[in-house]
Amino acid sequence: MTYVLTGSETIYNGKVFNIRIDRVKAPDGITRQIDVVEHGGAAAFLPLDHDGGIWFVRQYRHPAGMELLEIPAGTLEEGEDPLDCVVRECREEVGLTPARVTLLGSCYLAPGYSSEKIWIYLAEELTPDPLPGDDDEDITVEKIQLSSIPGLIAEGRLVDAKSITGLYLLQMYREN
Amino acid sequence: MTYVLTGSETIYNGKVFNIRIDRVKAPDGITRQIDVVEHGGAAAFLPLDHDGGIWFVRQYRHPAGMELLEIPAGTLEEGEDPLDCVVRECREEVGLTPARVTLLGSCYLAPGYSSEKIWIYLAEELTPDPLPGDDDEDITVEKIQLSSIPGLIAEGRLVDAKSITGLYLLQMYREN
Repeated sequence: MTYVLTGSETIYNGKVFNIRIDRVKAPDGITRQIDVVEHGGAAAFLPLDHDGGIWFVRQYRHPAGMELLEIPAGTLEEGEDPLDCVVRECREEVGLTPARVTLLGSCYLAPGYSSEKIWIYLAEELTPDPLPGDDDEDITVEKIQLSSIPGLIAEGRLVDAKSITGLYLLQMYREN
Repeated sequence: MTYVLTGSETIYNGKVFNIRIDRVKAPDGITRQIDVVEHGGAAAFLPLDHDGGIWFVRQYRHPAGMELLEIPAGTLEEGEDPLDCVVRECREEVGLTPARVTLLGSCYLAPGYSSEKIWIYLAEELTPDPLPGDDDEDITVEKIQLSSIPGLIAEGRLVDAKSITGLYLLQMYREN
């Protein structure tokens, strides 16, 4: 089945995303408008410490209107290797540098309207090596034992899809 | 910590989302611009059949530029109960109506820029009761045995965050 782009107009250029209005002709011959949040992609990671704890970040997320607990993540800079992004963000957000980084998988967060693809990594063998963080991020870090995480999810205290997806991928990785 | 909205302008009203540019004053006294994809929320569900298979949908997702395998989901209509959305979408997309629907959890898909919250359900005791689907959706359905799913994820053939999140929630639900 072939979908053909017959028109495309960018109506907004923002810091985190652009907005593009596309027209796409489907195999049924009908052309439909599809609004796209154009996003350059991101890398998220589970920083797994020597003691079996995972470092999470807690920050106010204005679009959700609340503070959320999440695995650390960063938006890819233009042309940036997701692996480099992981090391940078791990130093910036958690103050640790990982000696071992393993790709667990990648996924789309909201493929109905956003082009964002996120790569999810396991970051291990962590040692202190902080980098100053972004000015526009007000983040606290919390180490949580793997065994406590299902309880947090069941209680609705961990409600971030990329984090839960990452935990599923980590579990698959550890079982193999 | 208190974040205060000091300005808000909607710059685009679309079918699936609106775009809002907010100005938010953080506890550090600095006001920052945050671009928000305003989304009314969604409901997704795992339609678990009598034989242990889960019904997935396969559709071309233009923002991702590819066909994706996903659990069925629908955008909430204004004021709609997510549970009603599940029953409607299950009939429209899978042609089955569930006699038993259980909330597994809810989460944010991309809380850094999108307000979308998604409720994830388990839909069981399925019997045929089709409703005509949306004109703008070109969907095929596939029943996949639960035991085959980790392999699909490992091979990168199931790369949708809400689906993997739903599978994690289902696993937690079945273990309790």
